[in-house]
Amino acid sequence: VKIGILGSGIVGLTFSAKLTGLGHDVMLGTRDVTRLLARTDPGAYGLSPFKVWHEEHQAVKVGTFAEAAAHGEILFNVTSGAGSLEALQLAGAANLDGKILIDIANPLDFSQGMPPSLLVSNTDSLGEQIQRAFPKVKVVKTLNTLNAQLMVTPRQLADGDHTAFVSGDDAGAKAQVVDILKNWFGWRDVIDLGDITTARGAEMLLPLWVRLWGVLQTPLFNIKVVK
Amino acid sequence: VKIGILGSGIVGLTFSAKLTGLGHDVMLGTRDVTRLLARTDPGAYGLSPFKVWHEEHQAVKVGTFAEAAAHGEILFNVTSGAGSLEALQLAGAANLDGKILIDIANPLDFSQGMPPSLLVSNTDSLGEQIQRAFPKVKVVKTLNTLNAQLMVTPRQLADGDHTAFVSGDDAGAKAQVVDILKNWFGWRDVIDLGDITTARGAEMLLPLWVRLWGVLQTPLFNIKVVK
Repeated sequence: VKIGILGSGIVGLTFSAKLTGLGHDVMLGTRDVTRLLARTDPGAYGLSPFKVWHEEHQAVKVGTFAEAAAHGEILFNVTSGAGSLEALQLAGAANLDGKILIDIANPLDFSQGMPPSLLVSNTDSLGEQIQRAFPKVKVVKTLNTLNAQLMVTPRQLADGDHTAFVSGDDAGAKAQVVDILKNWFGWRDVIDLGDITTARGAEMLLPLWVRLWGVLQTPLFNIKVVK
Repeated sequence: VKIGILGSGIVGLTFSAKLTGLGHDVMLGTRDVTRLLARTDPGAYGLSPFKVWHEEHQAVKVGTFAEAAAHGEILFNVTSGAGSLEALQLAGAANLDGKILIDIANPLDFSQGMPPSLLVSNTDSLGEQIQRAFPKVKVVKTLNTLNAQLMVTPRQLADGDHTAFVSGDDAGAKAQVVDILKNWFGWRDVIDLGDITTARGAEMLLPLWVRLWGVLQTPLFNIKVVK
């Protein structure tokens, strides 16, 4: 499947590597392609500099947000939440419309220091903002509630006995995303929370997540809904 | 132990029944004692009218917020979140100061219909508001993330294999509350999130909780932190 990954941070690289490994045709979209390809500074979270990473992952194409969006039949929004709407504007509605956009971004506000608060919450969410800005895109919020590595390899924690959520207005798109989570990444427990307004609940997990990261001293945890 | 329960809704009655059953000396505090004792309308969630409930639970004393606060060595705030600060003002700082206040309330805003949003969140929390308003009270936020019945009988779900959180500024008070959760109610997994600002994360779980209630069609669920 042709995949467009919007965002070249740790989540974007993790998905690009995983999806090319599964045989998909992946283009990673970024704001400034020349600048990204030239980067020799170490990445965040112990990642190699992008230049080195890309030599190790040559199957991953690199393009602008617009090129990656045009390339993908299925799109991932893995930009930082504060820049998501602008990145999607750069991608362009014409390249997005009618497609599934798997929205993994969190609207984290680091401007007041750590831990971050949320730029939008409670009566709105980033998922809803994106859906309103691009009404013809099939936005499905998911996987924003956990670490990048666990998003694509959930079985590495408790053999996958923990929960992912999906939120979105388009039932067919959600079913396809649940299928992707289960069959591409190995998720066992996926709960459909409802329409895109339920992204509020998923995004509002972040303040708890950040504190648990501090307490547990590892990002390799998740929550399970026990019923 | 002498216990003061502030709030006569479903959570207050559940704790009163459980704690008297454990042999504690419980006073339930309410705004208008005469009115509560005379209530013959059915309670919420299938509860008996208060008059009938009280005949079945005669060991539970009933008093004003101030009387219940004065009575208790350990206090529970189980008022509705929108009314918590006013109820605590009625209880009176003199009756609260120096005591542990186990704060289970959620600042739910039903004014815009269902599902509720939060009256305070993201950069503040009800737990913090209470701690600021009553600086000499040892506020410990806990158990606000689940159903009343599971709060006091966690083993009825998955033999207790799910998580409760505590937040608070006073380490000794938190340790005492963790002890209460484990030894009185049977909690197995209690995570100390940190100071009272971490109540934000616990309270911001509510929008997800409410949606899960709708999806799962039962309030008898909880989350487990899988690590």
